[in-house]
Amino acid sequence: MACFVKRLLNLKSLNSLTFGTSKRLHTPFVSQFKWQQTSQNVQYTTQVPPAKLGQAASENDKRDFLAVFPDVVRELTNLGTQSDISDAQKWFAKVIQYNVIGGKLNRGMAVYLSLKEFIPKDALTPEIKRKAFILGWVMELIQSHYLVTDDIVDDSKMRRGKKCWYLNEGVGLRAVVDALLLNAGAFKLLSNHFKEEEYYVDMLDLFHDINLKTVIGQCLDLQTSNNKGPNLKKFTMENYDAIIRHKTSYYSFYLPVALAMFMAGIRETDYARVAGITDRELHRQAKTILLEMGSFFQVQDDYLSCFGDISITGKDGCDIREGKCTWLAVVALQRASNSQRKIMEEHYGRDDDASVKRIKELYKNIEAP
Amino acid sequence: MACFVKRLLNLKSLNSLTFGTSKRLHTPFVSQFKWQQTSQNVQYTTQVPPAKLGQAASENDKRDFLAVFPDVVRELTNLGTQSDISDAQKWFAKVIQYNVIGGKLNRGMAVYLSLKEFIPKDALTPEIKRKAFILGWVMELIQSHYLVTDDIVDDSKMRRGKKCWYLNEGVGLRAVVDALLLNAGAFKLLSNHFKEEEYYVDMLDLFHDINLKTVIGQCLDLQTSNNKGPNLKKFTMENYDAIIRHKTSYYSFYLPVALAMFMAGIRETDYARVAGITDRELHRQAKTILLEMGSFFQVQDDYLSCFGDISITGKDGCDIREGKCTWLAVVALQRASNSQRKIMEEHYGRDDDASVKRIKELYKNIEAP
Repeated sequence: MACFVKRLLNLKSLNSLTFGTSKRLHTPFVSQFKWQQTSQNVQYTTQVPPAKLGQAASENDKRDFLAVFPDVVRELTNLGTQSDISDAQKWFAKVIQYNVIGGKLNRGMAVYLSLKEFIPKDALTPEIKRKAFILGWVMELIQSHYLVTDDIVDDSKMRRGKKCWYLNEGVGLRAVVDALLLNAGAFKLLSNHFKEEEYYVDMLDLFHDINLKTVIGQCLDLQTSNNKGPNLKKFTMENYDAIIRHKTSYYSFYLPVALAMFMAGIRETDYARVAGITDRELHRQAKTILLEMGSFFQVQDDYLSCFGDISITGKDGCDIREGKCTWLAVVALQRASNSQRKIMEEHYGRDDDASVKRIKELYKNIEAP
Repeated sequence: MACFVKRLLNLKSLNSLTFGTSKRLHTPFVSQFKWQQTSQNVQYTTQVPPAKLGQAASENDKRDFLAVFPDVVRELTNLGTQSDISDAQKWFAKVIQYNVIGGKLNRGMAVYLSLKEFIPKDALTPEIKRKAFILGWVMELIQSHYLVTDDIVDDSKMRRGKKCWYLNEGVGLRAVVDALLLNAGAFKLLSNHFKEEEYYVDMLDLFHDINLKTVIGQCLDLQTSNNKGPNLKKFTMENYDAIIRHKTSYYSFYLPVALAMFMAGIRETDYARVAGITDRELHRQAKTILLEMGSFFQVQDDYLSCFGDISITGKDGCDIREGKCTWLAVVALQRASNSQRKIMEEHYGRDDDASVKRIKELYKNIEAP
């Protein structure tokens, strides 16, 4: 077991996704968060972590992963040779091309990179590698389904450096159906490539379970902040933890590693045992560690979205404008005097530069980061 | 096999869903449609079929089915006793209460009513009956997920006699996430109650396969008519068939019967055989018949939405206003002279009473129905 956890913590992709490699962050930023156990040997960064720059995986691995994409598109948009749905197939191809490519591909790559840690080098045949990549594209399809949906609900304007999908000519709210197409496509891929695997049913169940958690997370997120503005009463650390764990950590951190565990023969079942520990226990341990990593990633992401290098993050106080329940906002409210709380109430969640500036000043005064 | 098909055609719920019982429709209406084989013994109706009135199932069966609903809500909104997501659970309860109840429950009841035909009376224990009802609620959750989504995309105003969900105070576009909740809830129910069944994986695969078909159908529907108006060039009988088969027939007609077939031990696999015929063949035959029934239902529905008794259907030319690709519109265009086609181009898909009246007159002149 210790060995497995060590392997998990050694996962280069996930470490660089969460920790980055350069400068040390302010200690309060770290100690605030319950990351003491593993934080001793890690350096923190105020720069953008490699994962945000898409550097979590090697260029070779990424090239191989991208090389599978055209096959995925072809497979999903050539559902038999049914000429009677060819209009829908052409549209589906557009939806995939626009929405699935352009991100950092970290979730997709994480399946293969995790699998590499879990199985011996000579077991990593071209067939196994390809299967891991297919699972990676399943992850990316599901991710794009969440993003297209989120953009509509959050009234966002830009995504990955271009207009959000629903803002395109001729799209509009039909993007809701397009998001469903992306999700249905993910399960089609799974069925085509994994139906014969012993772990298929456990895998499907995990996808469903984590999907419910993610949607619950989206729902919680909308309850702390919606089109009427932020509900500061709900900005507690407990709510923050629940939102990011449900909305992000399960599917972004635990899911890709769990998929690799399935492929490596570690199933979430009681009856199979590895090294004297049940697979269920291994999944539980992995989940605990990965959810913590997910939380840490999100805290860091919140910080960088506000104080990171704008030329790299492309974000300048979006969370403040949108009134999102971020780690910074929660800590600020925890520490705020009455007058500082009033500033939050007046300016948080307002889409103007002066308000964003006012909140950033407040964060600095209050030494939130 | 003949025996199975006979049982299928004897299914009271499906027969009343498609055929109704009273007056005979105009022959052209029927002969236009390829329903000759089974139409000899059936009477057609210009009135609303019992299924539309919610009379497809007996009052007793319906009462028993509804009695399971509170347990379903409790199960889905009490996901453990996680106090950190209780806000989301309360919201989820509201979403279910508002959107799942109020319909005719035909899809939900169809699972149990089909199962009753497939297994001996003494095999229908209270446990089996309850399981069939749970599957029925899975059907209704999935149905409500499609309806909430459709209403947003189609900009609809009313659903089941009340405001569409997204039009409610404090909802708006977060309804997109609520639709995802309803869908995720369906799979949670499935996992809770069917995970141990031998047919679970085949069942999940069928849900995914049919979900992709349904979403492809929604996509095709949006391509014949969107917020820019109807695209009459696409109003062909081939496109119409493809839309309704994908968008409606698979999930409304084949799916509930297939679920009952799984419960009755008829799986869509090669290795099990019933009466010398593979289960796969039985499913294929059932699908063929049920998709035909679905098409017939939709043609009838299109007709009644336009010419049915408004006091019962509550519909007065909605399809014309929304520019939907209906059977009537397709037939009208097939038979139209150049000047009649111009009337279609000018008035179809316009939300004013005069245009609706003009199109209805055209339908009568052209003897479309």
